[in-house]
Amino acid sequence: MEDLKTKFMKAALKETQKAYEAKECPIGCVIVKDDKIFVRAHNLKLTKSNALMHAEVIAIDKACRKLGDWRLNDMDMYVTLEPCTMCSGAIIQSRIRKVFFGAYEPKSGAVCSCNDIFNTEHGHNHFVEYEGGIMEKECSDLMKKFFLEMRDRNRRDTQENGN
Amino acid sequence: MEDLKTKFMKAALKETQKAYEAKECPIGCVIVKDDKIFVRAHNLKLTKSNALMHAEVIAIDKACRKLGDWRLNDMDMYVTLEPCTMCSGAIIQSRIRKVFFGAYEPKSGAVCSCNDIFNTEHGHNHFVEYEGGIMEKECSDLMKKFFLEMRDRNRRDTQENGN
Repeated sequence: MEDLKTKFMKAALKETQKAYEAKECPIGCVIVKDDKIFVRAHNLKLTKSNALMHAEVIAIDKACRKLGDWRLNDMDMYVTLEPCTMCSGAIIQSRIRKVFFGAYEPKSGAVCSCNDIFNTEHGHNHFVEYEGGIMEKECSDLMKKFFLEMRDRNRRDTQENGN
Repeated sequence: MEDLKTKFMKAALKETQKAYEAKECPIGCVIVKDDKIFVRAHNLKLTKSNALMHAEVIAIDKACRKLGDWRLNDMDMYVTLEPCTMCSGAIIQSRIRKVFFGAYEPKSGAVCSCNDIFNTEHGHNHFVEYEGGIMEKECSDLMKKFFLEMRDRNRRDTQENGN
Protein backbone atom coordinates (compact mmCIF):
# COMPACT_ATOMS: atom_id res chain seq x y z
CA MET A 1 0.00 0.00 0.00
CA GLU A 2 1.14 3.51 -0.83
CA ASP A 3 2.44 5.43 2.16
CA LEU A 4 0.83 8.69 3.25
CA LYS A 5 3.79 10.85 2.17
CA THR A 6 3.54 9.53 -1.39
CA LYS A 7 -0.24 9.89 -1.39
CA PHE A 8 -0.13 13.54 -0.32
CA MET A 9 2.75 14.46 -2.63
CA LYS A 10 0.83 12.91 -5.52
CA ALA A 11 -2.09 15.19 -4.62
CA ALA A 12 0.28 18.19 -4.68
CA LEU A 13 1.56 16.97 -8.08
CA LYS A 14 -2.02 16.95 -9.41
CA GLU A 15 -2.15 20.64 -8.53
CA THR A 16 1.02 21.33 -10.59
CA GLN A 17 -0.84 20.06 -13.64
CA LYS A 18 -3.56 22.70 -13.12
CA ALA A 19 -0.90 25.41 -12.84
CA TYR A 20 0.82 24.13 -16.00
CA GLU A 21 -2.43 24.21 -17.96
CA ALA A 22 -2.92 27.81 -16.83
CA LYS A 23 0.60 28.61 -18.19
CA GLU A 24 1.88 29.16 -14.65
CA CYS A 25 5.15 27.83 -13.26
CA PRO A 26 3.88 24.39 -12.17
CA ILE A 27 3.99 24.34 -8.36
CA GLY A 28 1.34 22.61 -6.28
CA CYS A 29 0.57 22.25 -2.61
CA VAL A 30 -1.80 20.55 -0.17
CA ILE A 31 -2.27 21.09 3.56
CA VAL A 32 -3.08 17.98 5.57
CA LYS A 33 -4.95 17.71 8.89
CA ASP A 34 -5.60 14.43 10.72
CA ASP A 35 -4.19 12.49 7.76
CA LYS A 36 -6.72 14.02 5.38
CA ILE A 37 -6.31 16.72 2.73
CA PHE A 38 -7.70 19.94 4.19
CA VAL A 39 -7.00 22.33 1.27
CA ARG A 40 -5.35 22.21 -2.18
CA ALA A 41 -3.74 25.05 -4.15
CA HIS A 42 -1.50 25.82 -7.10
CA ASN A 43 0.55 28.78 -8.23
CA LEU A 44 -1.63 31.56 -9.69
CA LYS A 45 0.78 34.50 -9.77
CA LEU A 46 0.38 35.37 -13.46
CA THR A 47 -3.31 34.47 -13.70
CA LYS A 48 -4.12 36.78 -10.77
CA SER A 49 -1.40 39.36 -11.57
CA ASN A 50 -0.46 39.15 -7.91
CA ALA A 51 3.02 38.56 -6.47
CA LEU A 52 1.57 36.90 -3.36
CA MET A 53 -0.24 34.12 -5.20
CA HIS A 54 2.28 31.31 -4.67
CA ALA A 55 0.72 27.88 -4.05
CA GLU A 56 1.75 27.88 -0.37
CA VAL A 57 0.30 31.33 0.40
CA ILE A 58 -2.99 30.45 -1.32
CA ALA A 59 -3.14 27.17 0.62
CA ILE A 60 -2.49 28.90 3.98
CA ASP A 61 -5.11 31.54 3.17
CA LYS A 62 -7.67 28.83 2.32
CA ALA A 63 -6.82 26.81 5.44
CA CYS A 64 -7.15 29.82 7.81
CA ARG A 65 -10.51 30.74 6.25
CA LYS A 66 -11.80 27.16 6.39
CA LEU A 67 -10.66 26.64 9.99
CA GLY A 68 -11.57 30.16 11.17
CA ASP A 69 -8.24 30.41 13.00
CA TRP A 70 -4.82 31.88 12.17
CA ARG A 71 -3.10 28.93 13.86
CA LEU A 72 -2.65 25.81 11.73
CA ASN A 73 -0.79 24.05 14.56
CA ASP A 74 -1.55 20.45 13.83
CA MET A 75 -1.34 20.69 10.06
CA ASP A 76 1.40 19.63 7.63
CA MET A 77 2.16 21.04 4.20
CA TYR A 78 3.15 19.06 1.10
CA VAL A 79 4.58 21.23 -1.67
CA THR A 80 6.32 20.19 -4.90
CA LEU A 81 9.12 22.78 -4.67
CA GLU A 82 11.22 24.08 -1.78
CA PRO A 83 9.47 27.25 -0.51
CA CYS A 84 10.87 30.76 -1.06
CA THR A 85 11.45 33.31 1.72
CA MET A 86 7.90 34.70 1.60
CA CYS A 87 6.31 31.26 1.77
CA SER A 88 8.69 30.01 4.48
CA GLY A 89 7.80 33.09 6.52
CA ALA A 90 4.08 32.48 5.94
CA ILE A 91 4.54 28.86 7.09
CA ILE A 92 6.16 30.10 10.32
CA GLN A 93 3.46 32.74 10.87
CA SER A 94 0.68 30.17 10.49
CA ARG A 95 2.39 27.69 12.85
CA ILE A 96 2.33 24.82 10.37
CA ARG A 97 3.90 21.76 12.02
CA LYS A 98 5.95 20.20 9.22
CA VAL A 99 6.73 20.89 5.57
CA PHE A 100 7.38 18.09 3.11
CA PHE A 101 8.75 19.31 -0.19
CA GLY A 102 9.69 17.67 -3.47
CA ALA A 103 12.36 19.36 -5.56
CA TYR A 104 15.13 21.50 -4.07
CA GLU A 105 15.30 25.08 -5.40
CA PRO A 106 19.00 26.00 -5.65
CA LYS A 107 18.30 29.60 -6.74
CA SER A 108 15.78 30.79 -4.17
CA GLY A 109 14.84 27.97 -1.79
CA ALA A 110 14.76 29.46 1.70
CA VAL A 111 14.42 26.25 3.71
CA CYS A 112 17.87 24.76 3.13
CA SER A 113 19.26 25.67 -0.33
CA CYS A 114 19.88 29.44 -0.10
CA ASN A 115 18.80 30.08 3.46
CA ASP A 116 17.85 28.27 6.63
CA ILE A 117 14.74 30.24 7.58
CA PHE A 118 13.07 27.64 9.83
CA ASN A 119 16.18 27.54 12.01
CA THR A 120 17.10 31.23 11.94
CA GLU A 121 13.69 32.83 12.48
CA HIS A 122 13.60 34.30 15.95
CA GLY A 123 10.82 35.66 18.11
CA HIS A 124 8.57 32.65 17.83
CA ASN A 125 8.45 29.65 20.11
CA HIS A 126 7.62 27.62 17.06
CA PHE A 127 10.00 25.57 14.98
CA VAL A 128 8.87 24.13 11.70
CA GLU A 129 10.20 20.69 10.84
CA TYR A 130 10.91 19.82 7.24
CA GLU A 131 11.84 17.00 4.91
CA GLY A 132 12.93 17.60 1.30
CA GLY A 133 13.41 15.42 -1.76
CA ILE A 134 10.08 13.56 -1.65
CA MET A 135 9.26 12.31 -5.18
CA GLU A 136 11.96 14.73 -6.27
CA LYS A 137 12.16 13.59 -9.90
CA GLU A 138 8.39 13.69 -10.46
CA CYS A 139 8.24 17.13 -8.84
CA SER A 140 10.98 18.59 -11.03
CA ASP A 141 10.02 16.93 -14.35
CA LEU A 142 7.06 19.20 -15.13
CA MET A 143 8.99 22.29 -14.04
CA LYS A 144 11.85 21.40 -16.41
CA LYS A 145 9.36 20.92 -19.25
CA PHE A 146 7.74 24.27 -18.45
CA PHE A 147 11.06 26.16 -18.52
CA LEU A 148 12.23 24.43 -21.72
CA GLU A 149 8.98 25.37 -23.44
CA MET A 150 9.24 28.93 -22.14
CA ARG A 151 12.78 29.21 -23.50
CA ASP A 152 11.68 27.86 -26.89
CA ARG A 153 8.76 30.29 -26.98
CA ASN A 154 11.01 33.23 -26.14
CA ARG A 155 13.51 32.17 -28.81
CA ARG A 156 10.77 31.89 -31.43
CA ASP A 157 9.38 35.30 -30.44
CA THR A 158 12.84 36.84 -30.74
CA GLN A 159 13.40 35.27 -34.19
CA GLU A 160 9.99 36.40 -35.41
CA ASN A 161 10.78 39.92 -34.33
CA GLY A 162 13.95 39.74 -36.40
CA ASN A 163 16.31 40.31 -33.48
CA MET B 1 7.27 72.29 5.03
CA GLU B 2 7.04 68.67 6.09
CA ASP B 3 9.21 66.34 4.04
CA LEU B 4 7.70 63.45 2.08
CA LYS B 5 9.15 60.76 4.36
CA THR B 6 7.44 62.32 7.38
CA LYS B 7 4.21 62.80 5.46
CA PHE B 8 4.02 59.15 4.37
CA MET B 9 5.07 57.76 7.76
CA LYS B 10 2.35 59.88 9.38
CA ALA B 11 -0.14 58.25 6.99
CA ALA B 12 1.15 54.81 8.06
CA LEU B 13 0.77 55.92 11.70
CA LYS B 14 -2.87 56.80 11.07
CA GLU B 15 -3.35 53.19 10.00
CA THR B 16 -1.90 51.94 13.33
CA GLN B 17 -4.72 53.77 15.12
CA LYS B 18 -7.30 51.77 13.14
CA ALA B 19 -5.53 48.52 14.07
CA TYR B 20 -5.40 49.59 17.73
CA GLU B 21 -9.12 50.35 17.78
CA ALA B 22 -9.75 46.86 16.33
CA LYS B 23 -7.67 45.43 19.24
CA GLU B 24 -4.94 44.37 16.81
CA CYS B 25 -1.21 44.88 17.34
CA PRO B 26 -0.97 48.45 15.96
CA ILE B 27 1.06 48.22 12.75
CA GLY B 28 0.26 50.38 9.72
CA CYS B 29 1.54 50.67 6.18
CA VAL B 30 1.19 52.69 2.99
CA ILE B 31 2.55 52.05 -0.49
CA VAL B 32 3.56 55.14 -2.46
CA LYS B 33 3.73 55.60 -6.24
CA ASP B 34 4.81 58.84 -7.94
CA ASP B 35 4.94 60.59 -4.55
CA LYS B 36 1.28 59.79 -3.88
CA ILE B 37 -0.29 57.25 -1.56
CA PHE B 38 -1.43 54.33 -3.71
CA VAL B 39 -2.83 52.02 -0.99
CA ARG B 40 -3.16 51.97 2.82
CA ALA B 41 -3.44 48.98 5.16
CA HIS B 42 -3.22 47.92 8.79
CA ASN B 43 -2.74 44.65 10.62
CA LEU B 44 -5.89 42.51 10.63
CA LYS B 45 -4.56 39.12 11.71
CA LEU B 46 -6.95 38.58 14.64
CA THR B 47 -9.95 40.28 13.05
CA LYS B 48 -9.67 38.05 9.98
CA SER B 49 -8.36 34.97 11.88
CA ASN B 50 -5.69 34.74 9.21
CA ALA B 51 -1.92 34.48 9.76
CA LEU B 52 -1.20 36.24 6.45
CA MET B 53 -3.04 39.45 7.29
CA HIS B 54 -0.04 41.60 8.27
CA ALA B 55 -0.28 45.24 7.16
CA GLU B 56 2.44 44.80 4.52
CA VAL B 57 0.85 41.71 2.90
CA ILE B 58 -2.56 43.38 2.79
CA ALA B 59 -1.00 46.49 1.23
CA ILE B 60 0.86 44.47 -1.44
CA ASP B 61 -2.31 42.52 -2.23
CA LYS B 62 -4.28 45.77 -2.62
CA ALA B 63 -1.57 47.36 -4.76
CA CYS B 64 -1.31 44.37 -7.15
CA ARG B 65 -5.10 44.30 -7.55
CA LYS B 66 -5.31 48.05 -8.10
CA LEU B 67 -2.44 48.09 -10.60
CA GLY B 68 -3.38 44.78 -12.28
CA ASP B 69 0.26 43.72 -12.20
CA TRP B 70 2.38 41.57 -9.86
CA ARG B 71 5.33 43.97 -10.27
CA LEU B 72 5.32 47.04 -8.01
CA ASN B 73 8.69 48.16 -9.42
CA ASP B 74 8.46 51.88 -8.93
CA MET B 75 6.68 51.84 -5.60
CA ASP B 76 7.99 52.42 -2.07
CA MET B 77 6.57 51.09 1.19
CA TYR B 78 6.28 52.97 4.48
CA VAL B 79 5.59 50.73 7.46
CA THR B 80 5.65 51.54 11.17
CA LEU B 81 7.54 48.39 12.24
CA GLU B 82 10.46 46.50 10.73
CA PRO B 83 8.95 43.72 8.55
CA CYS B 84 9.07 40.02 9.52
CA THR B 85 10.40 37.25 7.27
CA MET B 86 7.07 36.68 5.50
CA CYS B 87 6.58 40.37 4.75
CA SER B 88 10.20 40.91 3.70
CA GLY B 89 9.83 37.98 1.30
CA ALA B 90 6.56 39.42 -0.04
CA ILE B 91 8.31 42.78 -0.57
CA ILE B 92 11.02 41.01 -2.62
CA GLN B 93 8.46 39.00 -4.61
CA SER B 94 6.51 42.14 -5.52
CA ARG B 95 9.68 44.04 -6.54
CA ILE B 96 9.01 47.00 -4.27
CA ARG B 97 11.82 49.53 -4.70
CA LYS B 98 12.47 50.77 -1.18
CA VAL B 99 11.12 50.15 2.31
CA PHE B 100 11.05 52.89 4.94
CA PHE B 101 10.24 51.58 8.41
CA GLY B 102 9.73 53.20 11.81
CA ALA B 103 10.55 51.07 14.85
CA TYR B 104 13.13 48.29 14.83
CA GLU B 105 11.82 44.85 15.85
CA PRO B 106 14.57 43.15 17.87
CA LYS B 107 12.67 39.84 18.25
CA SER B 108 11.60 39.10 14.68
CA GLY B 109 12.63 41.91 12.31
CA ALA B 110 13.99 40.27 9.19
CA VAL B 111 15.43 43.36 7.48
CA CYS B 112 18.34 44.09 9.81
CA SER B 113 17.56 43.09 13.42
CA CYS B 114 17.38 39.27 13.31
CA ASN B 115 18.12 38.67 9.68
CA ASP B 116 19.33 40.45 6.57
CA ILE B 117 16.77 39.16 4.05
CA PHE B 118 17.08 41.92 1.45
CA ASN B 119 20.79 41.20 1.14
CA THR B 120 20.73 37.41 1.44
CA GLU B 121 17.81 36.56 -0.84
CA HIS B 122 19.15 34.94 -3.98
CA GLY B 123 17.61 34.08 -7.32
CA HIS B 124 16.25 37.54 -8.03
CA ASN B 125 17.96 40.34 -9.85
CA HIS B 126 16.20 42.68 -7.51
CA PHE B 127 17.58 44.30 -4.40
CA VAL B 128 15.30 46.16 -2.07
CA GLU B 129 16.72 49.25 -0.46
CA TYR B 130 15.69 50.15 3.06
CA GLU B 131 15.90 52.84 5.70
CA GLY B 132 14.85 52.25 9.32
CA GLY B 133 14.19 54.45 12.34
CA ILE B 134 11.88 57.00 10.67
CA MET B 135 9.68 58.60 13.37
CA GLU B 136 10.85 55.70 15.52
CA LYS B 137 9.45 57.00 18.82
CA GLU B 138 6.00 57.76 17.41
CA CYS B 139 5.94 54.33 15.72
CA SER B 140 6.79 52.44 18.91
CA ASP B 141 4.68 54.47 21.39
CA LEU B 142 1.32 52.98 20.44
CA MET B 143 2.79 49.47 20.29
CA LYS B 144 4.18 49.85 23.80
CA LYS B 145 0.78 51.05 25.04
CA PHE B 146 -0.89 48.09 23.32
CA PHE B 147 1.42 45.53 24.94
CA LEU B 148 1.16 47.13 28.40
CA GLU B 149 -2.62 47.04 28.20
CA MET B 150 -2.54 43.43 26.98
CA ARG B 151 -0.33 42.46 29.92
CA ASP B 152 -2.67 44.23 32.38
CA ARG B 153 -5.69 42.51 30.84
CA ASN B 154 -4.04 39.10 31.06
CA ARG B 155 -3.06 39.74 34.70
CA ARG B 156 -6.64 40.79 35.58
CA ASP B 157 -8.04 37.71 33.83
CA THR B 158 -5.66 35.44 35.74
CA GLN B 159 -6.58 37.06 39.08
CA GLU B 160 -10.30 36.82 38.34
CA ASN B 161 -9.90 33.14 37.58
CA GLY B 162 -8.28 32.74 41.02
CA ASN B 163 -4.96 31.47 39.66
